[in-house]
Amino acid sequence: MGNQAKTAITPTRDEDYPGWYQEVIKASDLAENSPVRGCMVIKPWGYALWENIRSVLDDMFKQTGVKNAYFPLFIPKRFLEKEAEHVEGFAKECAVVTHHRLEEGPEGSLVPAGPLEEPLVVRPTSETIIGESFSRWVTSYRDLPLLINQWCNVVRWERRTRIFLRTSEFLWQEGHTAHSNPQEAMERTLQMLDIYARLSEDYLAIPVIKGEKTASERFPGAVNTFTVEAMMQDRKALQAGTSHFLGQNFATASGIKYQSAQGKEEYAWTTSWGVSTRLIGAIIMTHADDNGLVLPPKITSAHVVLMPIVKKPEHKNMVADYTDKLARELRGICYHDRKLVIEIDDRETGARGWDWIKKGIPVRLEIGPREIANGSVVVGRRDKGPREKESMRRNEFVKKICSILDEIQGNLFSRASKLRQANSVHIDSKDAFYDFFTPENLKKPEIHGGFAYAHWCGSERCEEKIKEDLGVTIRCIPLTGEKEQGECLVCGSASDKRVLFAKAY
Amino acid sequence: MGNQAKTAITPTRDEDYPGWYQEVIKASDLAENSPVRGCMVIKPWGYALWENIRSVLDDMFKQTGVKNAYFPLFIPKRFLEKEAEHVEGFAKECAVVTHHRLEEGPEGSLVPAGPLEEPLVVRPTSETIIGESFSRWVTSYRDLPLLINQWCNVVRWERRTRIFLRTSEFLWQEGHTAHSNPQEAMERTLQMLDIYARLSEDYLAIPVIKGEKTASERFPGAVNTFTVEAMMQDRKALQAGTSHFLGQNFATASGIKYQSAQGKEEYAWTTSWGVSTRLIGAIIMTHADDNGLVLPPKITSAHVVLMPIVKKPEHKNMVADYTDKLARELRGICYHDRKLVIEIDDRETGARGWDWIKKGIPVRLEIGPREIANGSVVVGRRDKGPREKESMRRNEFVKKICSILDEIQGNLFSRASKLRQANSVHIDSKDAFYDFFTPENLKKPEIHGGFAYAHWCGSERCEEKIKEDLGVTIRCIPLTGEKEQGECLVCGSASDKRVLFAKAY
Repeated sequence: MGNQAKTAITPTRDEDYPGWYQEVIKASDLAENSPVRGCMVIKPWGYALWENIRSVLDDMFKQTGVKNAYFPLFIPKRFLEKEAEHVEGFAKECAVVTHHRLEEGPEGSLVPAGPLEEPLVVRPTSETIIGESFSRWVTSYRDLPLLINQWCNVVRWERRTRIFLRTSEFLWQEGHTAHSNPQEAMERTLQMLDIYARLSEDYLAIPVIKGEKTASERFPGAVNTFTVEAMMQDRKALQAGTSHFLGQNFATASGIKYQSAQGKEEYAWTTSWGVSTRLIGAIIMTHADDNGLVLPPKITSAHVVLMPIVKKPEHKNMVADYTDKLARELRGICYHDRKLVIEIDDRETGARGWDWIKKGIPVRLEIGPREIANGSVVVGRRDKGPREKESMRRNEFVKKICSILDEIQGNLFSRASKLRQANSVHIDSKDAFYDFFTPENLKKPEIHGGFAYAHWCGSERCEEKIKEDLGVTIRCIPLTGEKEQGECLVCGSASDKRVLFAKAY
Repeated sequence: MGNQAKTAITPTRDEDYPGWYQEVIKASDLAENSPVRGCMVIKPWGYALWENIRSVLDDMFKQTGVKNAYFPLFIPKRFLEKEAEHVEGFAKECAVVTHHRLEEGPEGSLVPAGPLEEPLVVRPTSETIIGESFSRWVTSYRDLPLLINQWCNVVRWERRTRIFLRTSEFLWQEGHTAHSNPQEAMERTLQMLDIYARLSEDYLAIPVIKGEKTASERFPGAVNTFTVEAMMQDRKALQAGTSHFLGQNFATASGIKYQSAQGKEEYAWTTSWGVSTRLIGAIIMTHADDNGLVLPPKITSAHVVLMPIVKKPEHKNMVADYTDKLARELRGICYHDRKLVIEIDDRETGARGWDWIKKGIPVRLEIGPREIANGSVVVGRRDKGPREKESMRRNEFVKKICSILDEIQGNLFSRASKLRQANSVHIDSKDAFYDFFTPENLKKPEIHGGFAYAHWCGSERCEEKIKEDLGVTIRCIPLTGEKEQGECLVCGSASDKRVLFAKAY
């Protein structure tokens, strides 16, 4: 292999996409699998991403009047028995607490003891337990709307897990609102979907398609489920956030009733909406390359790393002073409402630069005696090649750092948009559709077709047929798609709008 | 009862302190008990306090080089079997997950199914599971110190619970660090204790005594446990934060080993430290009065409430405009690194002012046509009487709001300090000591003695005797107490330092 072709990550995306994904996470030190089945340990470099996402979203939520609260981790079994469809979706695989003690058993072992009268489920989502609180908090139309969000951990006992994308425990936010009429509840549902789209596009630099899920992909118990869908580099879709209009289903199951202005007792209209640590998986699969992670500046764990170069011991103090002073100055700069996070890496190892490339930090600075003499810095950017470095006046760099970061942010978004553009097609024949998604027809084994906009009659049968044949699902019925007469790909019946088909995570 | 004596909270502190505590929480809308045994729902007004505490602490942690991470909720049973003393302390009462599914049973019921091969415990604290990660992260002395913190929920199956003070599930932070020598680990232990003292005194306005726990009150498995202890208004002590020096105990149990600079394999020295939502209980019991909650401005859920007064419909718009403009202006002001949080309450109810007094907001403003005509506002402060209001020029108020808040913050701290001062005694005879803590000798039934500094020989027997007789424990051996020769209160043996005795939460 020539020098040109060497990459920091093995395997590359082309060679083995899932293997590449695991390797990027390991090389960037984002997270690791834990000894607890399906659970992950989110390491500092990964957790900082979640903190930044949380901070951005939390501000957006609060600006729309949402307040944070915290509800119990445990849900009594009887709560899940109330809403049949919801149970169907969630009670299946979940962590069940049955005892409240461990007692000493044989040979220093511990055995469960103190059986509970009623088993408790570790929340897979909190509709039922929050519904119980809402039923007490809401009595009059004056109590509505009620706009609550919670940041917490949830558990779903997944059979097959993949770090960040599908883990038994994950972190998320779940918003829950109650309203006095369906219009307002639907507006809220779509307003939160817009916030998720803004988070994805403006902060994570991930272009998304907003749309509605078909009945088969709806949240259990919801009337409508809306989604933002993103294309990963293997052309598969990833659901980056969902917002549900729950009608009066959960209000009826939980007894969320209010007296209307006319003195009539009515059930409230509720919504719920959430995003999770899965977004970190989306960031990786959208931006990372064969040299490792690439982090969008607006939510990156750190913006700039300073690498002092000391070749002679007598230069050490001078270089350290220069570096510290620059770091202090940079740390005083605000970039999109957040102080710049600056790392100093003074390890004396040749692997240093590559370590930071693999971690995806937007900007790397090299500072040695020559730079100090010139009043300059050597700048490497993660949106450019690893060897493509530029010398800049130190003060010019300080002045320009925010616009450099904005440029990187913009480049990541435009690169992702181009990939999506290049792999989105309108398809009108069944044969072409099957060709598009059939592996042997694809250029590379790790590529899964793309986004196919095609006509669909609306029947679950046709949807199911494609899923069975190709493993392709309707990701959403786009909100912005234009009306257009056509024929269902499978059965030929009339259709008036294209829907978005893709393989999905 | 005369008008003078009426209070917003019934019962008062004097009448029934525990009843008053519950009532303050209810009247201020901080939190409520949930249908899940021992778990609470933290409502928005209470959760905001936790968010603010988190933000203050998180900044302080990060300034000392600590990074946040996230570890699994579940701990495999075998992990708890490793550290015997720790298990003794924690495995006793905990939530045990034994199944991973609910299946349909008779008559629409759900029954646990899918038994786990190994039961999982919901973390009561994460030493064992974090230890497992540390054992993989640490290989060389270059990896040390390792400074990690986690914000999360934990569960301890408490028999008797009291909201915020002792709940089965609570929110907390737990810091875990590993070091290459005991001195550095001990310095870190005390550094974090200092941070807790700063949080308590400078932000929560709660004066604390820093000290070390006796062996009987130590964290299970720790070598030394340090604490900050605060006096509540019923004169009982509340432990507001603890920091543990774990020696090599957990490192040995978890296998946290490193190669020293000399090439020798050594076990690391570890620490852990935490504060929890219990602090909200401490805020209530330190500052609240018979009219409800009183919030320290630096961590209050909101700083100022604006109450527009509209008596004639034609004034409504004018008053609303004036109020909105003032709110916007105030929201632009930064108070101790946080934008002022301003509430507008335009409900047309006479209970409005009292509602905000009960919620403990630091400053209330009344704004009606008369104030608008005068360019003034009527200011009520929570550190003064509910009827003690002052008229101020509007612009003067805007200019002074931060110093008003600082004044309130200072007054709360000084009031709490005076109470502690007035109820702290040096006692040298057993009789006087027993008198001090005997209910029939106390002025009021809801008062529990106070802080008694007395000599103690160091034996567990004498400590236990006092606990059995009076329910009084050694809260800590103060770090700052002077050496002083004396005789143990119980056995008369020599002692060279006073320790702090009190009844405790």
